[in-house]
Amino acid sequence: MTASLLTRIDHVGIACRDLEASIEFYVATFGLVVAGRETNEAQGVKEAMLHVADAPGGASYVQLLEPLSADTPVGKFLDSRGEGVHHIGYGVVDVSAALEQISGGGIRLVDERPRHGSLGASIAFLHPKSVGGVLTELVQSAGH
Amino acid sequence: MTASLLTRIDHVGIACRDLEASIEFYVATFGLVVAGRETNEAQGVKEAMLHVADAPGGASYVQLLEPLSADTPVGKFLDSRGEGVHHIGYGVVDVSAALEQISGGGIRLVDERPRHGSLGASIAFLHPKSVGGVLTELVQSAGH
Repeated sequence: MTASLLTRIDHVGIACRDLEASIEFYVATFGLVVAGRETNEAQGVKEAMLHVADAPGGASYVQLLEPLSADTPVGKFLDSRGEGVHHIGYGVVDVSAALEQISGGGIRLVDERPRHGSLGASIAFLHPKSVGGVLTELVQSAGH
Repeated sequence: MTASLLTRIDHVGIACRDLEASIEFYVATFGLVVAGRETNEAQGVKEAMLHVADAPGGASYVQLLEPLSADTPVGKFLDSRGEGVHHIGYGVVDVSAALEQISGGGIRLVDERPRHGSLGASIAFLHPKSVGGVLTELVQSAGH
């Protein structure tokens, strides 16, 4: 049996129209704690990572994403689908090795090489057309 | 500070048209292992839980959902949105207590009382209109 490539559900990426209101909702309703905020110009979002749990494979988060403008990927997502789950991020030990293994299986990649993600992670996206409609992100945490 | 109500990301619920093909994909691509399969007539789905990771708060899974017919909630979701993420399930220690706490905050519930979920869990859904477009499930594992 092949060992699992995925070490955890790292985060659920959720598109929202108002980042501050969404943070306030998740903190007030579920008691989540903000672990970090950043603006990612390359991805066209401002975002917050809200800590859900720690585990041997790494922590897990709710990631709230507000687009910087309407013509960004998350802006277009909001226009066509409305607020909701935008992508799922899974933890991996080594994102470069994971990409190589997965692309060998014929999966279409959004990122041929890893790039910078939230909280200092190294990340890469797989195309939703190859993953049953799910925009799927592989996440190698900064500490790993 | 309020303690977090959520102990983990329990599962990502993914709507698919062909359960067997989707299972085969996740096993072959990511090395996930099938932890259980069942048919839930009340929810109108046949489904599989694929194990991602273990953690102190409980295990996490990819849940693949194929509708039993077109006029079920997941069948209607596929018609309007296509394959993709259907809902997110978060772990809680006590689903009844969590429902009481959350409904006190004015959140609209799909389930006023817990019902049976996958792998013997006790579960309840919160309405997506109250949770930023995300159909959100609370999961109390059978073992907890």
